[in-house]
Amino acid sequence: MTTKPVIGLLGGGQLGRMLCESAGPLGYQIAILDEENSPAKQANHNDLHVTGSFKDPAKIKLLASRSDVLTVEIEHVDTQVLEEIATVGVDVTNADGAVTKKKVPVHPDWKTIRLIQDKYEQKEYLGKKGIPIAEQMAIADAGADRKASLQEATTKYGFPYMLKGAKGSYDGRGNFKVRSPEDFETAIQQMGDQPLYAERWVPFEMELAVMVVRTEDDAGKLQKVMPYPVVETIHEDSVCTKVFFPPRNVADDMQARAQKIACDVVSHLWGRGVFAVEMFLLKDGQVIVNEIAPRPHNSGHYTIEAVPQMSQYKAQLCAIMNDFPKDFEVVPRVPSALMVNILGGAKPTSHGELAELSRKLSNRSMDVYLHDYGKQSKPGRKIGHVTAIGYSSISKLLVKPHLRGQHRYHPRLPPLVAVTMGSDSDLPVLTAGLKILDQFNVPYEVRITSAHRTPHHMMKFAAEMAQGGVKVIIAAAGGAAHLPGMVASEVHLPVIGVPVKASVLDGVDSLYSIVQMPRGIPCATVGIGNSTNAALLAIRILGTTYPEYAAQMKAYQTKMKDEVLEKDLKLSSDGWQKYLEAKK
Amino acid sequence: MTTKPVIGLLGGGQLGRMLCESAGPLGYQIAILDEENSPAKQANHNDLHVTGSFKDPAKIKLLASRSDVLTVEIEHVDTQVLEEIATVGVDVTNADGAVTKKKVPVHPDWKTIRLIQDKYEQKEYLGKKGIPIAEQMAIADAGADRKASLQEATTKYGFPYMLKGAKGSYDGRGNFKVRSPEDFETAIQQMGDQPLYAERWVPFEMELAVMVVRTEDDAGKLQKVMPYPVVETIHEDSVCTKVFFPPRNVADDMQARAQKIACDVVSHLWGRGVFAVEMFLLKDGQVIVNEIAPRPHNSGHYTIEAVPQMSQYKAQLCAIMNDFPKDFEVVPRVPSALMVNILGGAKPTSHGELAELSRKLSNRSMDVYLHDYGKQSKPGRKIGHVTAIGYSSISKLLVKPHLRGQHRYHPRLPPLVAVTMGSDSDLPVLTAGLKILDQFNVPYEVRITSAHRTPHHMMKFAAEMAQGGVKVIIAAAGGAAHLPGMVASEVHLPVIGVPVKASVLDGVDSLYSIVQMPRGIPCATVGIGNSTNAALLAIRILGTTYPEYAAQMKAYQTKMKDEVLEKDLKLSSDGWQKYLEAKK
Repeated sequence: MTTKPVIGLLGGGQLGRMLCESAGPLGYQIAILDEENSPAKQANHNDLHVTGSFKDPAKIKLLASRSDVLTVEIEHVDTQVLEEIATVGVDVTNADGAVTKKKVPVHPDWKTIRLIQDKYEQKEYLGKKGIPIAEQMAIADAGADRKASLQEATTKYGFPYMLKGAKGSYDGRGNFKVRSPEDFETAIQQMGDQPLYAERWVPFEMELAVMVVRTEDDAGKLQKVMPYPVVETIHEDSVCTKVFFPPRNVADDMQARAQKIACDVVSHLWGRGVFAVEMFLLKDGQVIVNEIAPRPHNSGHYTIEAVPQMSQYKAQLCAIMNDFPKDFEVVPRVPSALMVNILGGAKPTSHGELAELSRKLSNRSMDVYLHDYGKQSKPGRKIGHVTAIGYSSISKLLVKPHLRGQHRYHPRLPPLVAVTMGSDSDLPVLTAGLKILDQFNVPYEVRITSAHRTPHHMMKFAAEMAQGGVKVIIAAAGGAAHLPGMVASEVHLPVIGVPVKASVLDGVDSLYSIVQMPRGIPCATVGIGNSTNAALLAIRILGTTYPEYAAQMKAYQTKMKDEVLEKDLKLSSDGWQKYLEAKK
Repeated sequence: MTTKPVIGLLGGGQLGRMLCESAGPLGYQIAILDEENSPAKQANHNDLHVTGSFKDPAKIKLLASRSDVLTVEIEHVDTQVLEEIATVGVDVTNADGAVTKKKVPVHPDWKTIRLIQDKYEQKEYLGKKGIPIAEQMAIADAGADRKASLQEATTKYGFPYMLKGAKGSYDGRGNFKVRSPEDFETAIQQMGDQPLYAERWVPFEMELAVMVVRTEDDAGKLQKVMPYPVVETIHEDSVCTKVFFPPRNVADDMQARAQKIACDVVSHLWGRGVFAVEMFLLKDGQVIVNEIAPRPHNSGHYTIEAVPQMSQYKAQLCAIMNDFPKDFEVVPRVPSALMVNILGGAKPTSHGELAELSRKLSNRSMDVYLHDYGKQSKPGRKIGHVTAIGYSSISKLLVKPHLRGQHRYHPRLPPLVAVTMGSDSDLPVLTAGLKILDQFNVPYEVRITSAHRTPHHMMKFAAEMAQGGVKVIIAAAGGAAHLPGMVASEVHLPVIGVPVKASVLDGVDSLYSIVQMPRGIPCATVGIGNSTNAALLAIRILGTTYPEYAAQMKAYQTKMKDEVLEKDLKLSSDGWQKYLEAKK
């Protein structure tokens, strides 16, 4: 169907491959410039391919002549050629043999790519736009007195500080940590002739990343920047190895802040497409921008399964073709995901073992997806990734890929149930329920939030719950038992109230205080002191989302039935006297 | 990476294309036998392709010589050659130039393919195995007295009956409905020389289909047959146009029966892979088998999004490679799906409009996925499909594809909430709650199931609820108010009890009867007569699964708050006297 528009793609690695995998069903046509048998070409077959290097200006022009729009899967491309193609045009031979110039738009804009190629300039630019970045200074050119320049950086930032190559490096490669004046010589030697800059040492708590879609109208006017969820990225030996969605233990407001910053960054760039904004979360809660990738990114692989309706690859295609749905909102379709890169191991057959492993790991409540890039395996090379999608807990997530070392991860789980009480004197009443939650393997947290002694603390707790991953709240209180109802007023979640029997009135006061909520704010009330039923009700509610809990509940009910039937049999066969005797 | 095993695929149409799309990420390598630029080849590029017809024995042998296993995406292939390849072997030239025979396994087995090629023989075989089928008889060969044979069929089945070609047809093509003796001549002429059979007219209610995975060990011993969910297929002008998952208004036990029959059918076949079993659901509730496809099938396209962890394509690959995960259970990851085929329209550019449409239709609670097959559009040709996945209701599903006619579908929704009461005298109390459910656009059903007057009816209702798509039950009762608790005893779902005030005791009797359930069986109790809160609680629970309802609940709470704040402002500015006056 060469009548369809053609997307010319510079680079045919794994990002290009996944772009092609998304393009096929959507009916987009891609022409790839890369070597024969590159990962992307294996998944895309047509007569538009250009075989060669994406650094070769002639080949880029040939690709452009066959394309309606150009895009990149790697930013280390010749932006002079891209500028020429976009502004002057490329020669095309018409049917009548005449040669004319055709301008081919480049997305993201060549200006964006050029800016991003220089990490120092990139951050200078962002800094001027008010984006939080680490302090930095340019180091004198090779040939000049680099040592003096390093000394100046020492004066500015103290030890340690980072020395970074401005161009051509990614994934933290080409960085040098300067710890003392003794390091100057080694640093200068190791970093070679490339342009360098120094950066204040940033002791970060965690690395975060946000994918952002940027759309523009045909006149080049910014239409929208739209963030994906925040993820936590793990780097080992300067290579991204894992991505957690959502990030572990990062408060919602902090995540919202990171999304806001990422959108700000991307609003200051040019062209359409997806952009990865990599950030540091500092110990003091500050978020600063580290670097940008003007393309689909390793930190967004998880979107293939977690945002299947609009993965970063689909978004890239729709955005550059100006096809992005107008009112689209990024709503993940799964509660959690873990992406693990597969790095080439010692054996070339690792991928077979990994496929096997990913099949074995799948179960009712977790799906494991393999993405083989069709690459020759080399030690340390990214040859694929797996994404595990948790449908209930990801506690069982135990991914054992052929990383350079062996790693096991037990991420701390976001709780599904929050249990709170007005006073620690209510805890004994809640014990039976907490044991039920343990028995059903439900992740939960327990808190004390008195409605009357700590009203603000209680409201804050409730507001937090309303934002996070918690699905159900259990609240116990006695007497003028306001806690369950007050929490219910603050959240949109189901709240289960457990009336606790106080010193007088036998718990009826507590029951009425909880169950007789006004129209508009329901509180699911269970029997007086019956935290067992509160927990079981919470699990029934979780079962409406997670088949695992529904199955467990069915099994629990069957067991209960069997136990009573057994007792009935025993009673009817032994007689009541003997039965009573045995029970003593 | 030619060290990976090679799957030889006969046929490169859309089924082959989707097989390739699944194979890439999983790291399976496919060699396709079909014409250049066939749909599958566009998505799969390597040096193993064989260009030519999948009916050409020489090409099939060439493909086999490059493959480790052979499979088909169409059953109209030469099974003599497949038999020879599997049992005698195919010539391969070794590195030293010597020619040896290599046996290549064929999955599904060539015996299965051969049997299925003859629809008459296929059903005769199934009938002998005890599978329910429509009565049928062979019609005399062309040349013999076909008219006498048709007369015999008339005597056996009466009018109308079906005359069918035994071979080479699918999707209901090549069928002739014989209505009277006057049709004999036309039927004989129209059906031509092909082998024919007559079939008793089956007035079916609905067409159902079940995909089944069949695994075998390396010795060819059956390991497992595993069904996918039942779907409803819609045929128009003898072409499948739509597939509903789940089928509309088909009881769970009937669905289970259809799955059982489909598994029985497939257990009597040979080889590994996925099989589609197409069935008729008759008016009397009988399920009979119509035909089998020994491969991925149109009725299973929806599994790409609805069972993403193991679509029919992944299952086909895993099964034929003997890689199928041992304890895998087919658990759909979405509540509902609608697949609509895109048939070529008048314009060759229809696909562009469709892509546009599928993007526009997506929203927070429904995802629409486009699958473009990369085919030249011809009127009536299957050139793609869209699958709409409903995350809450699919009521908004309004798919307007370029079918030959224009069709709109408003499927009846499976309810998410069931509301029941002990007596119709409770209905006035429930009215406020039902209005809330309407206001929030929640699909529900309302029933009367008295615990004391109709105990069996109540238990049956509860059991049905526990199986279906209902997520929450609301039960109202007064006095010795047993209904909510009894329903809770029968189901694993959350049950919300509404105490109804009876003639004495002010509703306290009802409240205690509902809230004081024994440990083990929780009932979420709301205030006396407060069905509003019961409905709101149900919506809070639905909100834990469906973001749409959570968002609505937040908006509802904000509105409530604003209303009170407004009243406060009015009261404080007007003074209480004027306020009271205005309220009168």
